[in-house]
Amino acid sequence: MAKELKNLTKRADNYSAWYNELVVKADLAEQSDVRGCMVIKPYGYAIWEKIQQSLDRRFKETGVQNVYFPMLIPKSFLSKEADHVEGFAKECAVVTHYRLKNAADGSGVVVDPEAKLEEELIIRPTSETTIWNTYRKWIHSWRDLPVLCNQWCNVMRWEMRTRLFLRTSEFLWQEGHTAHATREEAEERAKQMIRLYADFVEKEMAIPLVVGVKSETERFAGALDTYTIEAMMQDGKALQSGTSHFLGQNFGKAFDVQFVDRENKLDYAWATSWGVSTRLMGALIMTHSDDNGLVLPPNLAPIQVVIVPIYKGEEEKAAFDQKLGELAESLRKRGLSVKYDNADNKRPGFKFADYELKGVPVRLVMGGRDLQDGTIEVMRRDTLEKETVPVAGIEDRVEALLADIQTNIFAKAKKFLDEHIFPCDNYEEFKERVKEGGFFLCPWDGTAETEARIKEETQATVRCIPFDSDQSNPGTDMVSGKPAVCRAIIARSY
Amino acid sequence: MAKELKNLTKRADNYSAWYNELVVKADLAEQSDVRGCMVIKPYGYAIWEKIQQSLDRRFKETGVQNVYFPMLIPKSFLSKEADHVEGFAKECAVVTHYRLKNAADGSGVVVDPEAKLEEELIIRPTSETTIWNTYRKWIHSWRDLPVLCNQWCNVMRWEMRTRLFLRTSEFLWQEGHTAHATREEAEERAKQMIRLYADFVEKEMAIPLVVGVKSETERFAGALDTYTIEAMMQDGKALQSGTSHFLGQNFGKAFDVQFVDRENKLDYAWATSWGVSTRLMGALIMTHSDDNGLVLPPNLAPIQVVIVPIYKGEEEKAAFDQKLGELAESLRKRGLSVKYDNADNKRPGFKFADYELKGVPVRLVMGGRDLQDGTIEVMRRDTLEKETVPVAGIEDRVEALLADIQTNIFAKAKKFLDEHIFPCDNYEEFKERVKEGGFFLCPWDGTAETEARIKEETQATVRCIPFDSDQSNPGTDMVSGKPAVCRAIIARSY
Repeated sequence: MAKELKNLTKRADNYSAWYNELVVKADLAEQSDVRGCMVIKPYGYAIWEKIQQSLDRRFKETGVQNVYFPMLIPKSFLSKEADHVEGFAKECAVVTHYRLKNAADGSGVVVDPEAKLEEELIIRPTSETTIWNTYRKWIHSWRDLPVLCNQWCNVMRWEMRTRLFLRTSEFLWQEGHTAHATREEAEERAKQMIRLYADFVEKEMAIPLVVGVKSETERFAGALDTYTIEAMMQDGKALQSGTSHFLGQNFGKAFDVQFVDRENKLDYAWATSWGVSTRLMGALIMTHSDDNGLVLPPNLAPIQVVIVPIYKGEEEKAAFDQKLGELAESLRKRGLSVKYDNADNKRPGFKFADYELKGVPVRLVMGGRDLQDGTIEVMRRDTLEKETVPVAGIEDRVEALLADIQTNIFAKAKKFLDEHIFPCDNYEEFKERVKEGGFFLCPWDGTAETEARIKEETQATVRCIPFDSDQSNPGTDMVSGKPAVCRAIIARSY
Repeated sequence: MAKELKNLTKRADNYSAWYNELVVKADLAEQSDVRGCMVIKPYGYAIWEKIQQSLDRRFKETGVQNVYFPMLIPKSFLSKEADHVEGFAKECAVVTHYRLKNAADGSGVVVDPEAKLEEELIIRPTSETTIWNTYRKWIHSWRDLPVLCNQWCNVMRWEMRTRLFLRTSEFLWQEGHTAHATREEAEERAKQMIRLYADFVEKEMAIPLVVGVKSETERFAGALDTYTIEAMMQDGKALQSGTSHFLGQNFGKAFDVQFVDRENKLDYAWATSWGVSTRLMGALIMTHSDDNGLVLPPNLAPIQVVIVPIYKGEEEKAAFDQKLGELAESLRKRGLSVKYDNADNKRPGFKFADYELKGVPVRLVMGGRDLQDGTIEVMRRDTLEKETVPVAGIEDRVEALLADIQTNIFAKAKKFLDEHIFPCDNYEEFKERVKEGGFFLCPWDGTAETEARIKEETQATVRCIPFDSDQSNPGTDMVSGKPAVCRAIIARSY
């Protein structure tokens, strides 16, 4: 084993340090020289591209079209929707000037005071305001509806404490913005998109979820309802992984987007918005990975199969190149992404450690004896199990193994999630146990006061009221003793 | 014909107005509420996505990997490379603050003066500085080279006079940044990428080009050589459509990117950068389109085939839906993107005008008589020729027609280009003829003085010294009368 790669902090020792180190050591991302902004490196970006492609295809299947809106927003737009301004017109990057000039003393460049903007511009923290200001020009009749737009772009929220992928000042995301003629259609679209996210995250990322609706306190600024997918990290904390908002007519009214409905009456358009971001990368890393490094779901792994020969001398190398080159080609023909690594400037042990660290799902190794015997060693990254098998028919075995890894890591994470959802109706017990992590399904009176007290005393928040839990007899709020209106998932979170 | 769609200014009357109107009427893009920034609408963005996908695949085939670097750049980075600062540290968006707060008088939000940045940040006009500042951490040995990165992102240059796609303050592009161990390898990469662009633009966009090297005056700020692809618009003006720069060791030195070479000596890394942008959309529109609207190359058309039934009553509509639905499916199975438009809220004439305006390459129309006769009308958008043919075997005919349109529009544009490249060695003649447009291949003494005089007197500039022209006996500079060092393409440009 190559020590230089493997001195990764163990999860049990310091989960947070393990994560920070792993992101950097696995070449996914690193801090940039601008506070709170990250550089996404080729290996990390290749995973993000796979996430993008898969989601983009799913969006388009529901009729969504991609667009691009400007990244700069006039400051005054933010004030138009009363709740929205409270949520977003705070920590944001403000453009005040449009020119630099040479410093008089020759020391470099300075901002040209002559080039001050009349109205400051904000780098988008989210684009509801600028998009709805444009929708006013697009929407006049019910025949113009629905409008189903999405954009893949960068956004900026000036965060004070940042962590790679989980919370950065600039991040990449997609934001969908739809306009509808009726309340029902908009509500259904908001729910459709949270289901789409859940399906993608569970099937492709192999991350099990709790899906539900946010409390009023935790809603998106300007929404009537926020739906959420909440994942559980290995430390038992929640990671909000995607949200979909039913915005009612709030933005329609704020930006005067009126249309003539089927009954020939004027009405305001109904809105939704929904987004997932590079934060999903954090969820992916923290859900599956282990003390040896990344564990990637085969459906999103940039390299699904790596093939390493162990050879002595040029002649044996040539024999491997022939034999394993053919194998690689044959696997690629099945649509798999395969790397054949015959590089002679790294020892096999170094390569093994590196591909483990990078979470390549299946590793095939062939040595001199295998060449004689017609065998090959197969290792699966999720369990690290190795097996030596006949090389004939290996393609079927590799395909089956990739499918099995995808299923297995989901099942493992699902078991962990299920074992860490605790029904709880005793606040003393809750306060003690929440420190250890886990999702607590608790009777809640639905008030912001109770939420605030829980947050202050335990740092836990209402993550959501889950869709699929029994809400028929919620019982008594564990904090206030008042009748509960629902059972909510309460947990500490990222 | 639907008049409301077709009141497009004619090219002969006002080419510039024709372009501006067409971009908006064909639903490609529109002005946003932020000065100089555009909204790219779904139809326009769908074309851009096809451009992206095709280019991205080509980049990756040459070993390039995608990454993402922060959009904000510390002001001081711009000053590190002496030429670069002159070119880019001028008209740019400057972030000076990171927080808004509620105005004391309740009138909205104001910039919080407490939240002033110590060092201002610039929204990237291009990313050489921030990327090379990071490459210093990635590159230590010749074994780390080459580094071949690309990013698809937005950039910002504060333009005073803007036009949709051609020149906007914010635009979308890709920027490739490579680092190499030797001068030769970097020079070859810069040339490889301009050839890649040329191949893409000619084959997929069907736009013929002049490929060459820029004069020193027209080089990218910080480059030793800039290669360019120059397209000719229908008014005879040049549109620079993509550039690739050999940057020497300028950025390696400015950002101290040193590596140990094969001889164990320290050297600075060699650099290239290369980019194309949403400006390509402008080239696409202006090269092929006509007084009826867009003409799109089949390889990039979001809808390649539209099928329109002309029916009376529900029964006939149902018969068409059955018959034409099957035809659409059968075309889709061949990988074509097909729209079947049986909408009953628009007249056929309106649909025809709309699909002509949007440049859909092939239109199939079936009426009641066709249904009886087993025939269908085929129209090709490039020539507007119509033909009624048997519906049996129409799939082969459509595929052949799409290929023919792709070839034909290229040939037409190529003929136009060839007919408007004029060898010229008389300045008086040049001054007269350049007003009419065209590329003038002229003997040039290679001096900036001559370039400046030509620009001042004719608004024309040296577009490039073309690769494929005979440079063996350049003759005498038409302006200065000094010996010419080359024959250069001189033209007015966008």
